[in-house]
Amino acid sequence: MRQKRIRDYGVLLDTLPTGPLNKITDVPGVLVGHCTIDTPQHKTGVTMLLPRPENPFTHQYPAASFVLNGFGKSIGLLQIDELGALETPIALTNTLNVGLVHDALVEYMVQRCQSEGVPLTSVNPVVCECNDSTLNNICQRAVQSEHVFSAIASASRDFEEGAVGGGCGMVCHGLKGGIGSASRIIELPEGRFTLGILVQANHGRLPDLLLEGKPIGARIDSQNFEPDKGSIIVLLATDLPASDRQLKRILKRTSVGLARLGSFIGHGSGEVMIGFSTANTIPRDAQQGILTQCVLNEEKIDLAFQAAAYACQEAVLNALVTSKTTVGYQGDIRKGLAEFLPGLGWSSEQEAL
Amino acid sequence: MRQKRIRDYGVLLDTLPTGPLNKITDVPGVLVGHCTIDTPQHKTGVTMLLPRPENPFTHQYPAASFVLNGFGKSIGLLQIDELGALETPIALTNTLNVGLVHDALVEYMVQRCQSEGVPLTSVNPVVCECNDSTLNNICQRAVQSEHVFSAIASASRDFEEGAVGGGCGMVCHGLKGGIGSASRIIELPEGRFTLGILVQANHGRLPDLLLEGKPIGARIDSQNFEPDKGSIIVLLATDLPASDRQLKRILKRTSVGLARLGSFIGHGSGEVMIGFSTANTIPRDAQQGILTQCVLNEEKIDLAFQAAAYACQEAVLNALVTSKTTVGYQGDIRKGLAEFLPGLGWSSEQEAL
Amino acid sequence: MRQKRIRDYGVLLDTLPTGPLNKITDVPGVLVGHCTIDTPQHKTGVTMLLPRPENPFTHQYPAASFVLNGFGKSIGLLQIDELGALETPIALTNTLNVGLVHDALVEYMVQRCQSEGVPLTSVNPVVCECNDSTLNNICQRAVQSEHVFSAIASASRDFEEGAVGGGCGMVCHGLKGGIGSASRIIELPEGRFTLGILVQANHGRLPDLLLEGKPIGARIDSQNFEPDKGSIIVLLATDLPASDRQLKRILKRTSVGLARLGSFIGHGSGEVMIGFSTANTIPRDAQQGILTQCVLNEEKIDLAFQAAAYACQEAVLNALVTSKTTVGYQGDIRKGLAEFLPGLGWSSEQEAL
Amino acid sequence: MRQKRIRDYGVLLDTLPTGPLNKITDVPGVLVGHCTIDTPQHKTGVTMLLPRPENPFTHQYPAASFVLNGFGKSIGLLQIDELGALETPIALTNTLNVGLVHDALVEYMVQRCQSEGVPLTSVNPVVCECNDSTLNNICQRAVQSEHVFSAIASASRDFEEGAVGGGCGMVCHGLKGGIGSASRIIELPEGRFTLGILVQANHGRLPDLLLEGKPIGARIDSQNFEPDKGSIIVLLATDLPASDRQLKRILKRTSVGLARLGSFIGHGSGEVMIGFSTANTIPRDAQQGILTQCVLNEEKIDLAFQAAAYACQEAVLNALVTSKTTVGYQGDIRKGLAEFLPGLGWSSEQEAL
Repeated sequence: MRQKRIRDYGVLLDTLPTGPLNKITDVPGVLVGHCTIDTPQHKTGVTMLLPRPENPFTHQYPAASFVLNGFGKSIGLLQIDELGALETPIALTNTLNVGLVHDALVEYMVQRCQSEGVPLTSVNPVVCECNDSTLNNICQRAVQSEHVFSAIASASRDFEEGAVGGGCGMVCHGLKGGIGSASRIIELPEGRFTLGILVQANHGRLPDLLLEGKPIGARIDSQNFEPDKGSIIVLLATDLPASDRQLKRILKRTSVGLARLGSFIGHGSGEVMIGFSTANTIPRDAQQGILTQCVLNEEKIDLAFQAAAYACQEAVLNALVTSKTTVGYQGDIRKGLAEFLPGLGWSSEQEAL
Repeated sequence: MRQKRIRDYGVLLDTLPTGPLNKITDVPGVLVGHCTIDTPQHKTGVTMLLPRPENPFTHQYPAASFVLNGFGKSIGLLQIDELGALETPIALTNTLNVGLVHDALVEYMVQRCQSEGVPLTSVNPVVCECNDSTLNNICQRAVQSEHVFSAIASASRDFEEGAVGGGCGMVCHGLKGGIGSASRIIELPEGRFTLGILVQANHGRLPDLLLEGKPIGARIDSQNFEPDKGSIIVLLATDLPASDRQLKRILKRTSVGLARLGSFIGHGSGEVMIGFSTANTIPRDAQQGILTQCVLNEEKIDLAFQAAAYACQEAVLNALVTSKTTVGYQGDIRKGLAEFLPGLGWSSEQEAL
Repeated sequence: MRQKRIRDYGVLLDTLPTGPLNKITDVPGVLVGHCTIDTPQHKTGVTMLLPRPENPFTHQYPAASFVLNGFGKSIGLLQIDELGALETPIALTNTLNVGLVHDALVEYMVQRCQSEGVPLTSVNPVVCECNDSTLNNICQRAVQSEHVFSAIASASRDFEEGAVGGGCGMVCHGLKGGIGSASRIIELPEGRFTLGILVQANHGRLPDLLLEGKPIGARIDSQNFEPDKGSIIVLLATDLPASDRQLKRILKRTSVGLARLGSFIGHGSGEVMIGFSTANTIPRDAQQGILTQCVLNEEKIDLAFQAAAYACQEAVLNALVTSKTTVGYQGDIRKGLAEFLPGLGWSSEQEAL
Repeated sequence: MRQKRIRDYGVLLDTLPTGPLNKITDVPGVLVGHCTIDTPQHKTGVTMLLPRPENPFTHQYPAASFVLNGFGKSIGLLQIDELGALETPIALTNTLNVGLVHDALVEYMVQRCQSEGVPLTSVNPVVCECNDSTLNNICQRAVQSEHVFSAIASASRDFEEGAVGGGCGMVCHGLKGGIGSASRIIELPEGRFTLGILVQANHGRLPDLLLEGKPIGARIDSQNFEPDKGSIIVLLATDLPASDRQLKRILKRTSVGLARLGSFIGHGSGEVMIGFSTANTIPRDAQQGILTQCVLNEEKIDLAFQAAAYACQEAVLNALVTSKTTVGYQGDIRKGLAEFLPGLGWSSEQEAL
């Protein structure tokens, strides 16, 4: 059954066109897979983003990161910043599972390269994380190698959102958080390009939450004073030609979407953005000295800035409305935003019938 | 006559207490002065922020910068980033006048140090800028040494806001921009501290402008598609003990206030934030090897984050509502936001009478 | 038996005094332990640096990183840069083992905090790496949890240098590399302070190697044109009061020591520096709003700069002369520098007898 | 008369080929001009580097900066870092003259753009500086607009080195410093490319100075304990295709050359590097959305790293040997290195006759 998303509640942030699915997988080649661990003790998992069908180690893509708040444990940014390139799928998981997921991702790359006859003795796994300890018994590090391989195997275009994969144990603005996505179309003289966002949303305080500029969080519960802990990871994919420097500029604008939903970029909330462009492939072991790359005319970059800001804002809202109420391993209950919307004046088409 | 500010129109962004003036000068010792050049050819000037009565070269303060968009020409950040210290007043002027204002600020520091018997052969002037070429004949670089000295001489606590000093030629969200300010009180077990913001607001597009979450810009003129050009400078002062690293973190959160007013951090809009704390003085030519400094307990920093975000948002709104309609040297007319507020449902107390 | 170090060959880089051991463990409280995996298939292991006897999660230390070349996979820098604090021991291992060592370090911290009754649901393991695939069958990721615990258990002040622990499989300037260390004393009016360096040296090309300014590498083999691959990790500890910003400045100067030994900071050689000061403890869960910290008078920082540069240079030389000739899992032979020194005119006192 | 350079004394740092002049102007199109102010009160001036004959505002070039020590007042880096582009000539002058030179450079760009019918209301002047207050009465800011225009007018390929232009009042490693330059040829499958360096050398302590690895500074005067104050500016030009990210990586390696000459990157010595590539032009006001750029295959970048390190090292040595002994406005005497070389065993061919 199709999940109801924020547009189904009549919320339209902007007038930019979206891709067919309004997900990051509208960017050609991008796939997303989940493996969810939902047991009495564990509300966690892993979400994998695959940039293209090709081996990312041999077909690298221009990439960049932007760290809005570095109070986090995501890994792989060091090399992305130095070389401006992505060479593995990107994993989203819980904070204390970064190590085991790193190891599984190394194993996946070793196996894949061996099967393709590509020598590999060094690789830069990108593993991002949010802390799901409110709902998940995090110290047990439930995500194992098999879950990573399963998430990769299940990767598809029309992936699920909400409390799935790495989003299973998320808490966002005091409510149930999770995985969300959105996309926007950018029109240039040379054609139409897609920019997509995937978030693992685990940030923000309830009283700060805004919807269409209205203080919906305070209306839900004005007495919730939990501090902002937990982080948000924002992944950005695009087939727009963009250099690593341009990608970093575009990534910065995703923070606009977060601010408009009420985030203050809280101290305890690591905010990490990573993006890549599939428009150029960085060849491995090329013999030539000089390579040709397509980049965006910087004068046109405002189009990408707006697309990134709105897609990020919508992706977080999609995470919130698709995430079902969840009970944590210690009894903590986090409600899905969808339960509150009708009472606060937002109703979905289906419910309106 | 007292200027009407955004609170006079019933707009209250948050419930944090403000300082007595709700201006950056609520931070003890901080003074602000303007020199305005308003002629048929020129709508420009200079605004000077003085951190403390003491000579800032001999009484330096922990300082930091945060560059949200580096498409700008502000100077002095290099050394602030390296040494974490401010050693001159801060000037705000137009883009092409940075050089002459730098030179005047050097002259001021040379004279001041000579009069105090302090040897000075090197100094780091901080001069920030926005581009006022829509209204001002910028290529003529009208701001001269005398204007800088005049602005310093006129510095006071209860300074004017709006189209004055460096704000004279500003355009913000398509309307008349200028200088604005606000402050917030932060309560710690050790006492009350003040965080103040001063903006030179020259950024944003009209259709994006939001007031209390409502698309007020689009209601004023939904057909204005000018790109975002021009920049915003955000100055932050506080008597809260904060290290340079903490100040940089706090400065980042001022971007939240801009986003909530509708900014996308446009390509052409350089966004530069500079902040300092007067809680510690960095002694010059001290003989001891080790110095003692007070810093903020990082666990309490969310208080400063919210104060910075809200004070920045209010400072921009104060700039907008205090700036009177201005006609540029080539006939371009920029209207003050105050003209539109009553028609859009916001009225000031005085007008309500 | 005491290992012969570079000073035993008559090489004295500078006249600054050293600590009693001339190792990083001269900084009070710092301990270093190794676990070496030396089998036909594996030349690898893990080296652990413990900042102080106290639990580093409850007694955090001001810390900083400096990335000279980010072509590497070290983890933990993101949070160090944001918060300026170290909260775990630091591990040195091989590139593909970062994940498993991360997981073991999480396990160590979970156990330690549980035993002390400290709640822990988030922690930032710092794991640095160099690539030992020339000598080690790296894809098998031989370093397991037990090795990390063993290295911690064996931590001592007078630790071994050379091809041990994380240094087992290193190659440096074409010769056998490994772990090396050195220290310097800094005198201030307030007393004597120690700055220590530990390197995992796996960088550089043979023909570029310089000793006392002489092209010793080219004399050993002028026909070796291997590219610079492999990285160097530089850890710096000090009891000198230094803020995170000051630590970053001091760390930068370790690059001077590398350059003087002939490094060009090769493309394939990730160069990562991490440092901390034990002079201040950052309390966890403190109730006060304001903390007092000691920092270095910036005017005295040149003392630390020189100490860092020389100690780093000597640490790499100590790694080179203490590392014994090693045969890799595929038959590659890397000779120890000590074999060549007598023939090139440097002899140790003992050999001179 | 041709100036004697370091190669004339038999010092050959490396075997990489140089361009025909062994100067930065070997990069096609690059010109350098000086205006020297040598009076009893003033030992200062300005040096201008012109990237290409075309107007740099309409023909921008990929550019980057690297700040090794930000204790300096150079301006223009903010925008270079954000946009990765250079849009004016680069000026080198004294610390307190940055403002007036900025203003002259604005005037130059305004005039040039007006004469070409190019609208200009914003421009990013790049002005770098070192402090010449040891020899020059710096507070008087002797460099005026006319000197900047004169330096531009005199720009040529075979420019003078030493105590000229912005180098007139420099002090380097305790000796007379100044302007120096060098170049290297890089061979790729696609052809030969040139990388050139220009330094304004005003850094370092005498006892640290190394020549061919020998402590020449200590031999000249082992009792000189002046601290390192003053800075070095390193400009890099190349016709090698390199992205802004690649340029930043290449610039970092110039620090290797400085370290090998004995620099510790002293606290008081701002070290700023700026580089650009003329291989791509960034068009202004282009209508297309996508641009094509040539970049370097990252696997080949070690060639540029070595070229940058050696050319920088040689450029500083050229500055030292071409700078004649100078007496400052207060009687301070700084000797040229050339006076000492014969006595220390280095003699030029001409002198050997």
